[in-house]
Amino acid sequence: MSQLRALVLVCTLKPSPAPSSSELIGRQLLDELGTHGVTGEVIRVADHDVRFGVSTDEGDGDAWPGIRARILAADVLVLATPIWLGQPASVAKVVLERLDAELSETDDQGRMSMTDKVALVGVVGNEDGAHHVVAECLQALNDVGFTIPATAGAYWVGEAMHKTDYQDLDERPEATGKAITAAAASAAHLAKVLRASPYPAP
Amino acid sequence: MSQLRALVLVCTLKPSPAPSSSELIGRQLLDELGTHGVTGEVIRVADHDVRFGVSTDEGDGDAWPGIRARILAADVLVLATPIWLGQPASVAKVVLERLDAELSETDDQGRMSMTDKVALVGVVGNEDGAHHVVAECLQALNDVGFTIPATAGAYWVGEAMHKTDYQDLDERPEATGKAITAAAASAAHLAKVLRASPYPAP
Amino acid sequence: MSQLRALVLVCTLKPSPAPSSSELIGRQLLDELGTHGVTGEVIRVADHDVRFGVSTDEGDGDAWPGIRARILAADVLVLATPIWLGQPASVAKVVLERLDAELSETDDQGRMSMTDKVALVGVVGNEDGAHHVVAECLQALNDVGFTIPATAGAYWVGEAMHKTDYQDLDERPEATGKAITAAAASAAHLAKVLRASPYPAP
Amino acid sequence: MSQLRALVLVCTLKPSPAPSSSELIGRQLLDELGTHGVTGEVIRVADHDVRFGVSTDEGDGDAWPGIRARILAADVLVLATPIWLGQPASVAKVVLERLDAELSETDDQGRMSMTDKVALVGVVGNEDGAHHVVAECLQALNDVGFTIPATAGAYWVGEAMHKTDYQDLDERPEATGKAITAAAASAAHLAKVLRASPYPAP
Repeated sequence: MSQLRALVLVCTLKPSPAPSSSELIGRQLLDELGTHGVTGEVIRVADHDVRFGVSTDEGDGDAWPGIRARILAADVLVLATPIWLGQPASVAKVVLERLDAELSETDDQGRMSMTDKVALVGVVGNEDGAHHVVAECLQALNDVGFTIPATAGAYWVGEAMHKTDYQDLDERPEATGKAITAAAASAAHLAKVLRASPYPAP
Repeated sequence: MSQLRALVLVCTLKPSPAPSSSELIGRQLLDELGTHGVTGEVIRVADHDVRFGVSTDEGDGDAWPGIRARILAADVLVLATPIWLGQPASVAKVVLERLDAELSETDDQGRMSMTDKVALVGVVGNEDGAHHVVAECLQALNDVGFTIPATAGAYWVGEAMHKTDYQDLDERPEATGKAITAAAASAAHLAKVLRASPYPAP
Repeated sequence: MSQLRALVLVCTLKPSPAPSSSELIGRQLLDELGTHGVTGEVIRVADHDVRFGVSTDEGDGDAWPGIRARILAADVLVLATPIWLGQPASVAKVVLERLDAELSETDDQGRMSMTDKVALVGVVGNEDGAHHVVAECLQALNDVGFTIPATAGAYWVGEAMHKTDYQDLDERPEATGKAITAAAASAAHLAKVLRASPYPAP
Repeated sequence: MSQLRALVLVCTLKPSPAPSSSELIGRQLLDELGTHGVTGEVIRVADHDVRFGVSTDEGDGDAWPGIRARILAADVLVLATPIWLGQPASVAKVVLERLDAELSETDDQGRMSMTDKVALVGVVGNEDGAHHVVAECLQALNDVGFTIPATAGAYWVGEAMHKTDYQDLDERPEATGKAITAAAASAAHLAKVLRASPYPAP
């Protein structure tokens, strides 16, 4: 079996090199996937000229087709997003809208293009909103064909209306660390079994 | 102008006399409304035999018609609910479903039955979920005719995956106190102006 | 390999023998699972005295422990729910709250109690709300350990503000039929591969 | 009393002159507001270089400050958005994120910057998702200080998994027409009473 691959799409609103808590949790998930033999890369979406739209290629320099090729090459997609007003970041919504195009795409066996791929969600915010962000992301990713491993959402948020960022914590909170460990272990297992036993053609 | 009235519906899963963090934030909102001359009462829904359904009266001892009469007599409705799995409590959903019946009810001017009433939402949880609970409750309450004053959601939640209840905190967190103050002030003002200037008949 | 089993929990607000569109889509999903060798049963939750709560057993005649035993015996859980005000039915929320207790339960290998189980969601409404209901249900089910197969939400809703029930349609709409077929096929496959290759102990 | 003003922010993913169903429902809401003496303008957000961010001005040619000035000059804000994957469009999320900055902004009386402003939401999609989009938008707008008039969400969606656009319907569906009428009447009334009786300073 060839190497299992992961892709982390970081959906912070800020381009590099601004520090990003979303990138931090995304990288932590990737590191943990690595302990299960799933290796990969991180793309910060705001560093690329990804257009608004619901097609696979909006043309004219659209950076999405390049990112889409990375998704197609991956077994595990990690969507890492901040929370704003209790909801997923607009950049995450851009990614999900671009994935809407996959509803019309099939592979060479006539299966949905994202079949056999596994999705995780990493969420960070100063306070409140993680469960809902996980819900929005998992539903949309599952709609377009991703399989969701047990306990696929890993998150940190502070107490109500607090202001601290995940990246400014002195250490990784134990509960978030456990959630990252569990999500990565589930995803790695599921990606392996789906590689060995792919979904049948319809 | 006669006294403005508030009704707090507490949607904890537990009947009295079990202590309830939802009841606590509900009473805090009611106390704060009192400083603006809006007085009222608290009903813990789980203490009453409210049936599942989407009518104004499910018959056979259904306790909803009695609660509905209290809502009709109030100017401000406060829905106070805990968070479970990042979502509103089932008891809050029972209340909203019973209010669904109001979509078919009109007052003697042909207006929706809940016209001129103002709604607030109080939310508590050990961790995460308040914004989404507010969203669910406000949308449903607004659908059936309630007006939503500025900053209508007051909440407390702890840090991610923490276990402390609101009622077990040593003191009321300052940010939650400010949110309660702001929500109550908005609601009292809006209830007053709608009493003085009701929505016109359609 | 022993027979794979499915359990459909129907979350209509009405007890039997009232006709239920949720039960209809639940049975259609079960029939389709049967074509893949996954057989099972349907429980209408409102027929049983399931208590509000977040424990595995609220005592004193609570019907949940009996239903929980059926869930533990199943490989595939189908949650079938109507939509009210664009949101999951309160009965579905009762089920999810009872499953919240599983966050503290482990099997004899120290894994979460729902590990290796697969979840589907069937949703029906007169109009609008299915995607969000799927989101709420999948997030909560995934939180407590269920794995979500590709395209796990099957639904029907009518055009905006229309009044027709799913069970009163002249025939099953083609798109909903395809969604049922796809969801069942995914779930059956995933249940099989997880039976053969269970998640490892943490 | 000076003229009451409305601003419609159209959140289609497509710049002009592409036809837009969101713009259509936005203009229909504006026309209806006009019958109540509330007049205004329509801005298609995708026609402007609005940056990702959570400040009032991201600098370097950011088009948001110009749009923000229009919001500050309006009494009624109409957010008109399409549905993608059952959720608000990313462009609507960009707008809400930019409005997040208002949490730190006050007027000359020390009130939140959006105080006394009223918000409506217009939603269109081929199928399913309107209630949830309304929920997301109302919660976020209310968080940052907007008041929500009774029945503030006006929408159209087709039957499950259908493909027709709102702008391609032969005529405006009666139910959507009534929802537009009701939302505009509520908003105009509430804007008038808040103009006459503004929220007090905290």
